[in-house]
Formats: sequence, C-alpha cells, structure tokens
Amino acid sequence: MITYSFTDIGSETLYQHLYHCLKNDIVAGNLKENDRLPSKRSFAKNLGISVITVENAYAQLLAEGYIYSIPKKGFFVETIPDAVRMRYQETSTMEGETESYGDDISPAGKGTALLADFASNRNHPDHFPFSVWAKLSKETMAQDPHGLMTPSPANGVYELRVAICRHLSDFRGMKVDPSQVIIGAGTEYLYSLLIQLLGYDKIYAIENPGYKKLYQIYQSHHVICRAISMDEKGVSMEQLLKSDTDVLHITPAHHFPTGIVTQIGRRYELLNWAAASERRYIIEDDFDSEFRMVGRSIPMLQSIDMQGKVIYMNTFSKSLSSTIRISYMILPPNLAEKFHEKLGFYSCTVSTFDQFILAGFIERGYFEKHINRMRTYYKNLQRRLIENIKNSSVASKVEIAEEEAGLHFLLKLETSLTDRQIVEKAMTMGYRVLTLSECYIRDDSKESWKTTDIKQAATDRRNAVKDTHTLVINYSGMEEEQLPMINGLLEELCR
Amino acid sequence: MITYSFTDIGSETLYQHLYHCLKNDIVAGNLKENDRLPSKRSFAKNLGISVITVENAYAQLLAEGYIYSIPKKGFFVETIPDAVRMRYQETSTMEGETESYGDDISPAGKGTALLADFASNRNHPDHFPFSVWAKLSKETMAQDPHGLMTPSPANGVYELRVAICRHLSDFRGMKVDPSQVIIGAGTEYLYSLLIQLLGYDKIYAIENPGYKKLYQIYQSHHVICRAISMDEKGVSMEQLLKSDTDVLHITPAHHFPTGIVTQIGRRYELLNWAAASERRYIIEDDFDSEFRMVGRSIPMLQSIDMQGKVIYMNTFSKSLSSTIRISYMILPPNLAEKFHEKLGFYSCTVSTFDQFILAGFIERGYFEKHINRMRTYYKNLQRRLIENIKNSSVASKVEIAEEEAGLHFLLKLETSLTDRQIVEKAMTMGYRVLTLSECYIRDDSKESWKTTDIKQAATDRRNAVKDTHTLVINYSGMEEEQLPMINGLLEELCR
Repeated sequence: MITYSFTDIGSETLYQHLYHCLKNDIVAGNLKENDRLPSKRSFAKNLGISVITVENAYAQLLAEGYIYSIPKKGFFVETIPDAVRMRYQETSTMEGETESYGDDISPAGKGTALLADFASNRNHPDHFPFSVWAKLSKETMAQDPHGLMTPSPANGVYELRVAICRHLSDFRGMKVDPSQVIIGAGTEYLYSLLIQLLGYDKIYAIENPGYKKLYQIYQSHHVICRAISMDEKGVSMEQLLKSDTDVLHITPAHHFPTGIVTQIGRRYELLNWAAASERRYIIEDDFDSEFRMVGRSIPMLQSIDMQGKVIYMNTFSKSLSSTIRISYMILPPNLAEKFHEKLGFYSCTVSTFDQFILAGFIERGYFEKHINRMRTYYKNLQRRLIENIKNSSVASKVEIAEEEAGLHFLLKLETSLTDRQIVEKAMTMGYRVLTLSECYIRDDSKESWKTTDIKQAATDRRNAVKDTHTLVINYSGMEEEQLPMINGLLEELCR
Repeated sequence: MITYSFTDIGSETLYQHLYHCLKNDIVAGNLKENDRLPSKRSFAKNLGISVITVENAYAQLLAEGYIYSIPKKGFFVETIPDAVRMRYQETSTMEGETESYGDDISPAGKGTALLADFASNRNHPDHFPFSVWAKLSKETMAQDPHGLMTPSPANGVYELRVAICRHLSDFRGMKVDPSQVIIGAGTEYLYSLLIQLLGYDKIYAIENPGYKKLYQIYQSHHVICRAISMDEKGVSMEQLLKSDTDVLHITPAHHFPTGIVTQIGRRYELLNWAAASERRYIIEDDFDSEFRMVGRSIPMLQSIDMQGKVIYMNTFSKSLSSTIRISYMILPPNLAEKFHEKLGFYSCTVSTFDQFILAGFIERGYFEKHINRMRTYYKNLQRRLIENIKNSSVASKVEIAEEEAGLHFLLKLETSLTDRQIVEKAMTMGYRVLTLSECYIRDDSKESWKTTDIKQAATDRRNAVKDTHTLVINYSGMEEEQLPMINGLLEELCR
C-alpha cells in the first residue's frame, strides 16, 4: 500500500498533506490511470490518521477531477491529459508548492485538472469592480456604524430595497413598493422561504428540461415537484392543465437551457391558469436578464399580472458575482403581507454591511455602469468564441442556436458518439461540457418526486439523446486563452 | 378623517411620508392616546394612495411602539411617555427631520419610542471593531481577488473552517476537523439545513421554557416539535423518555432563559438516550458561550460524545454582531459525510468576502482580543446594573438570580401585578421587558405542534405566572445612561 510520512508537514493539516501527496503522485505518474486507491478505512489505519481525513482528501481530489469513484468499488486514478501534467509541472516549478496551495485546495480553484470548463456558469474574476466596492465598503463603515449594527428587518435593509425598486423602475419599467421586496442570501435560500410561505402542502412544478438544482431543492424540502415539458411557445399548457400543479416555477424571459422565450399569448394563458385557483402562483425566475443580447419586447409576467399571482425573482450572482450571495424576490402585495405575518420572525440572511454597500453601489449608478460594461464584454467574448467555432475544420458539422439568449448558447453536433461518450471524451481531453440531455429531470426518487408524465419525459429524453447531441456552452467564466481550445475539442467530438 | 398632502414630499417615498406625518402628530399630541386611526382601506382611498402604503406606515409605527392594534378593531395611538416626547422633540430640533430619518425608519432604530429595552439581546454598536474590520476588508480585496471570486464549497471557505477549528482547539479544547464544519448565514438558516439533513420525518424537541423562535422555525418547516420541561439538572429525562423525540435541541451550557447548567450525570444520560436509536441526535446550542462569567468545569456534550450523536452550534452574532450573519455547526463525521452527499449541491449562504475577512480576524488574534475586551466590558456593565438595583428603594423586594450565566440574568419581583400587567405597565413608562412566563411554549397550533405533555406545560406556565414574576433582563445593548432607569421601573412595578 502507498504510504506517506506525516511527521514534518509544516503548517499543513493532515488532510491537506495527504491531498498534496496523492495529487503529486498522480500528476507525476507514480499513480497510474485507473489505479485503485486504498480503501478509506485501511488507508487511515495504515497511515495512523482518521478516516474522515482520508475521506476529505479523496473528496477534494474527486472534485478536482484527479480521481473518480465507482460505487461499492472504490476510488480510481483519472486519466490526466498531458497538457494538464505539463501545466501543473510548470506551475509547481514557478510558484513552488506552498504558493500554489491556496488556490489548489478549492474544488473550483485554479489548480483544477481541467483545461477549460464549458459547463460552469461562474463569473470571470477579473471583472468584479473591486476598487469601487472597496471604496464603498470603507465609506459605509466610516459613515454609518449605527446603521450597520442595527438588525435588518426580516425582508432586508430599507435602503437596499429602495435602491432595487428604483433600479427596476428605471431600467425594467417595473413599479413595485419596497415593502414587496425580500432580500435573501441567494435564490436557493429564497426558494426555501417561498416553500414556507406558500405551503408544504402545495404541489410545485419546474420546467423540463431545466435547472437541475431546482429539482434537488424542492426534493430536499420534501415537497411534491412535477416536471412540465416545453413546447415552442413556453411551458406546455396541455401538460400543465393535466397536472395538479399549484406553484409553477419558470424562466419565461429566457428558458434555461433551451433559450425559449415564453410568447405573449402563452403568458396570458399562464396568468389565467394561476387566477383560476387561490392555491396557484407563478414564480418568474429572471436569472440572467441583465445580459440578454437582444431588446426585450415581451412584457414580464410580473408587469401584466393584475391578480397578485406572480412572484418575481432575480439575483446579483450573475450580474456581480455568485460569491457575494445577494438575491431578491418581489412578492405581490397580498403575499408580502403574509410574509410579515408568517415569516417576519426570521432574521434577514444577508449582512447589513453587504446590504448597505450594495445599496450605495446601485444608488450611485455603479451597478448600471458595471452591467453595461459587462454586457459589451460578454458580447465580444461570445462573438469571438463563435467565430472560432465557425472557422474550425468541423464548422459544417456544428450548428449554433440561441446565441442571443444570455450567458450561454447551444451547440448541436453531428457525431456518432452518444451524449455520454461526448462528456467522457471531453473529460479525458481536460474539458468539462454539459449536454442538453443532462438537463432533463430524471425520476430518481421514489418518495416525493412523482412526475405527472413519466412516459412523456422519458420520450423527450430519448429524443434529446437520439437526435441532437447538443452542448449547453456556458462561456461567462472563460479566459482569453481558452477560446481557441474549443476547436480541438469539437474536431475530436465530430470525427 | 386625518388628511395629509402628498404633493411636495421631496425624496421621501409615499410610505415614508405618511409614516413621518403620523409620527409627528402622535408625538406632538395632535393624535391622542387611544385615538383610533382610520382603517387602511378608507385612509388609502381618501389620500389617493395604495392600501399597501398605509399598511406599511402602520406596520412601521407598530414596530416602533407608536401605535397598537386590536384584532378586528383596528389601530390605536399608544401612550407616549413624556420623556419620549421630550427626547423626540430635542432630536428633531437638533438634527432636523431629514437627518434623523435614516435611523428612524428601522423598527429597531434609535428613534424607537422606548427609553430602554431590557428584552432585546442585540449588541451595543459602539463596541464593534470597525477599524480592524475595515483594514482586513481592504487587505482581503487587495490580496486575493481570485479567492473572493471562487465559489465557496457548500460548507464554507476552507480558510474560515480552519480558523474556527484552531479557535475551538485553543480556547475550548475541542478537536474537530475542518470537514466537520458547516458555515451558514445565521443559526436560523443552519436549523433549516439540519431539518433537511436529519429528515422531515423526525420528531424534534426543544426546552420549555425556551427560545420561542426555535419553536416558530420548526413549526414553519412543518415538522413535529415537542416541548420538554426542565428540572434542576437540565432537560427532564423523565419527560424526554416518555416522549417520542428523535432530535433534541438544547442549551446545556447555559439554558435560556433560566441559566440552568446541565449536570455531568445528566449529560451522560442524554448521550445514552441518543445512542439508543439510530434516529436520535442532540443539537448542542452554545449560543453565548464566550461571555459566560464563570469558568467552565463541565465538559461539553460534543467533547464527551463517542458515538457521533452531537451536533454543536455556535454563532458570531453574540460575540461580534448579529448583523454580520455568520454562524457555524460542527457535525459528527458520519453526518458530515451525509451532508456532502445530500446537501452538497447547495451554495454556501455567506459571502466569500465576509468569510475571508472573518478568517483573518480569527487567525490574527483579533477575535480573541475582542472577546476578552467585551467580556470585561459586559462584566462591568452587569455589575453596575446590579449595584443600581441593590441600592434602589425596592432592593428588598427583588432577587437577582443566574447573574453568572452570560448576557442576561433573572430578576424576581415581589409585586401584586400579574406578569401581563408588569409588561404593560413597563411599556407605558417607555420600557420593554420580557417575563419568564412569556418564554413558555404555548400550544397555539392545532396542526403540527402537539406537545407530549400539554397538561404539564400548562401547570408549569401557571406556576410561573402565579409564583414568580420573574424578568429576563438582557443588558448587552444598554447604554450607560440607561442603567439608572431600571430603578424607577422597579419602584413602579413593586409598589
């Protein structure tokens, strides 16, 4: 069995040390492709450390793509592309092991075993307005210490809610009162509040295909959740009406991942559906509205809702950074009242410091400037990425769709590979890709997840897998030098 | 009907304007004690504004104690103590209406209609280490922009988890691995994660009397929650064994609000109880451990738990500020593993900015210094408050208990008033107080809350109300000049 010394590990914890030893051996080739790592228990016993320490090191290596796991069989060494090996060796020599550690340890850090990640929707770090943020942060602390120490109301600091309302009024034409705004630490948290507000007894529904995390969140809260298929006008009315849905969670302005924009007629059909029962509500998730590449001509559901049936959601994750964790929702007045009654005892989950800084950032026009700058940046990035693809030797075998939709587009491939083979082949080359077929909700759980139309979903999935071989390309976090890499990848996939 | 002009309201929103008009009329005496305010609907119609705007202004006035509501009857003007009238008039003259607005608008702001709040557990704003925090904030942004833009793992930034482990090891003798730490935006949020982790099918239990918000949180998540009485050694084993509890949520180091410390024998009994079934866990809530005034001789449950049955919880709300929203829990290794499996898809709810700043704050020794300074400060504050009471003319009619327990103590009164009358009388004088009897969990809900021993709880509550007249005095947020006020209050209450 492999063994390492733990006697002279400096400032590293046991877990970090083990992680580094294993990673070095994998990259150096001492541990070979498909080698089986020792079982956690026996390895821990041999090294005289705890099982959780080994567990932790394995989890880290797994997250970074250095090893893979086969349930009931164990952990195995991943294929490491030569390019990664070389880059890692360069980095080690240049920066020294200690220097590079700080970045390596995080699953999403620079030291990941990927050359490029076309599946991740994170933001590019170089574009966050650090200097303005630092300035506002300093000013906020100097000017209003008392405000910062005053507990925020359950729905958030008043100043931030006002700033959000002005922004929505000026740039989206939405007329909402600050009392309707609820601030929370990320949309995931807001979904949890909504379930508590609307009820555990309600039946929720999401779009299929869709954003898988939503399914996980509803499932984790033990509420029933349906998956409703899409047609070309939006979420299928036929399926919705056949289902027993109470709360419909959709992305009408820009469906993820297909980019379908819900048509105006369908919007009114949806509002009529909601108005037909007291139990019904629509969650309008407007997650990357700031970066849609074309003008908006279709009004938002929130704006044309006359019955208080639409809950509007948005986040600063896409527009600023997913790491600052600030999102908001706009409740119709009746629900805003109910929120204060039922959930007003909760503390707001966002630090008052961050709320005041963001309020200043919006009020003083920095947010709008930032959005404009980033919109141009992403437009150029996308244009160059697409140019690259169109100039590649396999240009005739690929088709680009929905490129006006936001921070991702679709790429259809002519290939003999299955979707699963596409993902695996890309991974062996050092790339992570997301296929459209992976965005279909599967009927995994027997407990709480009962789709109304399992057969339909299965058919949709089969069609997706059979016909299209479509990649969902998220480009927002890509580096300049990663743009040309897509050609090599596509050539390999379309061969 | 009262009417106000909305034509020239400057930068105020409609809601702010109405709030200020009404408040001015109440404080100036134009609206008199017990005057009924117009109904929301008719007022809105008359003023030509929306119902939600009136709603909002009323809610604000209610939260600040300027008005009170009687269900089905409406809103009425509260008795405003002369001292408040005078102070308000001074403030208005000195600062001008526009200046004081920023503080006034928040329910917990300076402009509240209270002279002192003996029920609130908020921190005193003057003692937050703003200069160090600002320095670390600036350094963090300058030094590691890449780290700040890298999404935090679901359980929090590694650096902060390491810092917390070192702190717990150095100052509490706890040996835990960073992989066991889960960072979240407040303990309230962590409870929600725990329910998802341990299961909606489990039966939870809290202490009675106890922290009422816990009851609200479990209820809001639609899980069954029991209330278990206390005896002199801790939570009652007899009641616990009779109940069907799976997950017991307790404050063994310092029961809120009675201050009972769970005895060592009882601690082992509790661990044995937990070990007897796979479904059972204990949540050890250590909410104000940093400020306990006496040395700790009884080991924590977490430290003597050999079976992986104890979940330890703590927060930076008490030790730093409730407004920064950072708490953590330590899971036993088996649950830490389950967390990553079941809930690893969640984003951590705390901003990476705040996590890195706090990590630096702990690692560089500022946290320990701050705790030491505040411990001395609170000790002195408490000593002087108690001296005041002992020197008052009603010293013989009051008895102080549990003053070594943390940031609150108990004050038993000899009085002919009922507990309800105590609270009301204090409020008319401009003081908010909390009675021990209010901390008993009542059986309000017919749906999900079924205490195992409603009769016992009712008896406990009756005894509490009949015998003791005990106030729970939270002094952590008190101002220097508020200390002598307690004498006038006690003299009035014990007359």
